[in-house]
Amino acid sequence: MTQADNANALALQKMHEADPVLIDVAPAIEVIPNMTKNTILTSGAPLPWAEYEGGQKKSVIGGAIFEGLAKDDEDCEAKIAEGSIKVRPCHDYGCIGSLTGVTTASMPVFTVETRKTGKRGFCTIFEGPNKAARLNYGVYNETVRKNLIFLNEVIARVVGEAVRASDGIPLQPIMRRALNMGDELHSRNTAASIIFTYELIPYILGIAEKMPELVKQALAWIRQSESYFFLRLSMASSKATADAAHGVEGSSIVTAMTMSCKEFSIRVSGLGDTWFRTSIPKVEAKFFEGFTADDIAYMGGESIINETVGLGGFAEAAAFPLQDYVCATPEQMVERTLKMYEITTAEHPVLKIPFLRFRGVPTGIDIRKVVSTGITPVLDVGVANKLGGQIGAGVMHAPMACFKAALAAYNEKYNAAVTTAG
Amino acid sequence: MTQADNANALALQKMHEADPVLIDVAPAIEVIPNMTKNTILTSGAPLPWAEYEGGQKKSVIGGAIFEGLAKDDEDCEAKIAEGSIKVRPCHDYGCIGSLTGVTTASMPVFTVETRKTGKRGFCTIFEGPNKAARLNYGVYNETVRKNLIFLNEVIARVVGEAVRASDGIPLQPIMRRALNMGDELHSRNTAASIIFTYELIPYILGIAEKMPELVKQALAWIRQSESYFFLRLSMASSKATADAAHGVEGSSIVTAMTMSCKEFSIRVSGLGDTWFRTSIPKVEAKFFEGFTADDIAYMGGESIINETVGLGGFAEAAAFPLQDYVCATPEQMVERTLKMYEITTAEHPVLKIPFLRFRGVPTGIDIRKVVSTGITPVLDVGVANKLGGQIGAGVMHAPMACFKAALAAYNEKYNAAVTTAG
Repeated sequence: MTQADNANALALQKMHEADPVLIDVAPAIEVIPNMTKNTILTSGAPLPWAEYEGGQKKSVIGGAIFEGLAKDDEDCEAKIAEGSIKVRPCHDYGCIGSLTGVTTASMPVFTVETRKTGKRGFCTIFEGPNKAARLNYGVYNETVRKNLIFLNEVIARVVGEAVRASDGIPLQPIMRRALNMGDELHSRNTAASIIFTYELIPYILGIAEKMPELVKQALAWIRQSESYFFLRLSMASSKATADAAHGVEGSSIVTAMTMSCKEFSIRVSGLGDTWFRTSIPKVEAKFFEGFTADDIAYMGGESIINETVGLGGFAEAAAFPLQDYVCATPEQMVERTLKMYEITTAEHPVLKIPFLRFRGVPTGIDIRKVVSTGITPVLDVGVANKLGGQIGAGVMHAPMACFKAALAAYNEKYNAAVTTAG
Repeated sequence: MTQADNANALALQKMHEADPVLIDVAPAIEVIPNMTKNTILTSGAPLPWAEYEGGQKKSVIGGAIFEGLAKDDEDCEAKIAEGSIKVRPCHDYGCIGSLTGVTTASMPVFTVETRKTGKRGFCTIFEGPNKAARLNYGVYNETVRKNLIFLNEVIARVVGEAVRASDGIPLQPIMRRALNMGDELHSRNTAASIIFTYELIPYILGIAEKMPELVKQALAWIRQSESYFFLRLSMASSKATADAAHGVEGSSIVTAMTMSCKEFSIRVSGLGDTWFRTSIPKVEAKFFEGFTADDIAYMGGESIINETVGLGGFAEAAAFPLQDYVCATPEQMVERTLKMYEITTAEHPVLKIPFLRFRGVPTGIDIRKVVSTGITPVLDVGVANKLGGQIGAGVMHAPMACFKAALAAYNEKYNAAVTTAG
């Protein structure tokens, strides 16, 4: 084995041993290190404020108004310009953002901790069944505001109480089962959401007497949200898991992929916190009724942290019920997963794909293999509307340019001129 | 279309429109028509008492002792001989039995009703995680007795109260989802058990205050039993569904397959209540640790009512996680399901298989097609120990002889000499 291979094996070991556990649901300000009242986290490698546009910009401003940091767009722009409102990347805070990923101080976040290494990942709560009224899809209005308060007062309260009454809810066993039950854990999360609820039930029963009405509301809402509810838990889990593998000297393994409204970026275990950036690739989508490709907007997204650790597009062969929303036949879904083994270095020891005779999901994207094979990661993504809201789901292929840039940096840093995997 | 084809289309329509709903959990004596205190129902086409042997015989006697009808084996044998204890086939009572299928007056049964036609199917409750201590697997002792009482006092009580608090729990939507989640609903029922629990939660919350300890015990037990808990619900459902299609003049569709300890038998929609009988085929199995093929015993089983309506072996292509316990690769599981389309006449409009691009499960086994193709139904079955208890699960191919006998009777009755499908 080359030095890189040894480093990658170490990174993968850290990834595989992560054992992520949901330990809390609490306001961002209380649990995210270095979070402040006037910080707004958002998706993607950081951009100058002037670069943000469309839904992502609307979402950041909406978050500021929701948080009481600004009274309107103009006020918010002024305060960002003067620095009294700070816009920062989720990733720098151990946080991970869905679509625009806007996370403000009072918003409740899931806290997931890797038991072995104590890394923490944070992610806000899914905004629910109303596809057209979600801050993270670029909309802020009275419906969105009320819903964000509902998330805090009902969902975070009930789920938080239940989680704190437990010893923490281990997420890997839920994800393992969900892969046996038709989820790839990015665009399909139904089984995981149901199993998560099922796991909470003993603790929910314990608090039902104290707050019967809230429990009833929370369970009804989670039920309506089951297609995506668990996604935020898996994202927080994947963030903590990927971070556990980050910073291994000599490793050429990708530890984050992220999007802002402008850029697709990756970072690599052995290359510090540098983002390798390029433009956003086109998505191929299936649309909810009434929408077409003309409606698509790109407004960021970090849920592809799941692909970074072998889920989502990498696990399509586990999720045949999703075929329409990844624009593929079951056979093509199998082909996609098989291709991902060509650019990864390992197979997950616990998270497995039944159709592939329980082969572990492909983990550890090696930038050397991506460049040498010409195959880039396949990503299952939600699709946003120019006017805000979710209008479908689809599939995207990560752009080669950022992998090439990363490999050039890797070769420069480690004096390794080889571009093929060891 | 021939007359048979028209009749079969009508039978299939009745099967597909059944819409089975769980409406009650109550003692057999209270809900099963014509059930009496001294009747013991058991699996299979009826046999003279002297023909019953092994686990099935032990189970019938165990049921009699449990019910207080006899004090020991000798007493029971005498009372059966004199007719004061009656041994009757489940099928004649709208009931359906797992393995030995022993059902006595005080045992709680699920009542499933087809909404459209008002047919009812009944089935006892899964006896739980202790594989070696189940009456239906030929064991009766103090552990079994206590467990049967627990089923009555805890499981039936809690689930019954919850079901009665609902408008009935529609089972087809649960089965539809379970097929998307890796169950074939015979040897794998995990998703269905979890979804069923999830559906009950709102009603469970309503009764948790009244009986918190019972609710806690029931939920913990169902959780430990999730691999098979839902099977009994799907069996009651399949029985009512198959019965809805029974008795269509001219139809060559199979409406029941059943086993006693001695025989494998089928009955056909257009051929009245005659059982066409033959000997039991061998099972190919994967064993739980410590057991081998030498331990296998045949003691009856009517769970193959699920295959009769397109589930179990017919839906293996939906259940890749089950591969080991059906002794097949995923590719072979797909082949098996595809073969079942060759002997059936329709595809279920609601119950679908994701891997087959959401093709409906194959329904309506036509005895003419079975004989003309030489393909018999594939059956996913549990495997019993000579000493009693479950020791594994496996696959069985229905024996051709009973289909040939049925076809001969069909041709005689309907003067149709054709053996090929129309």
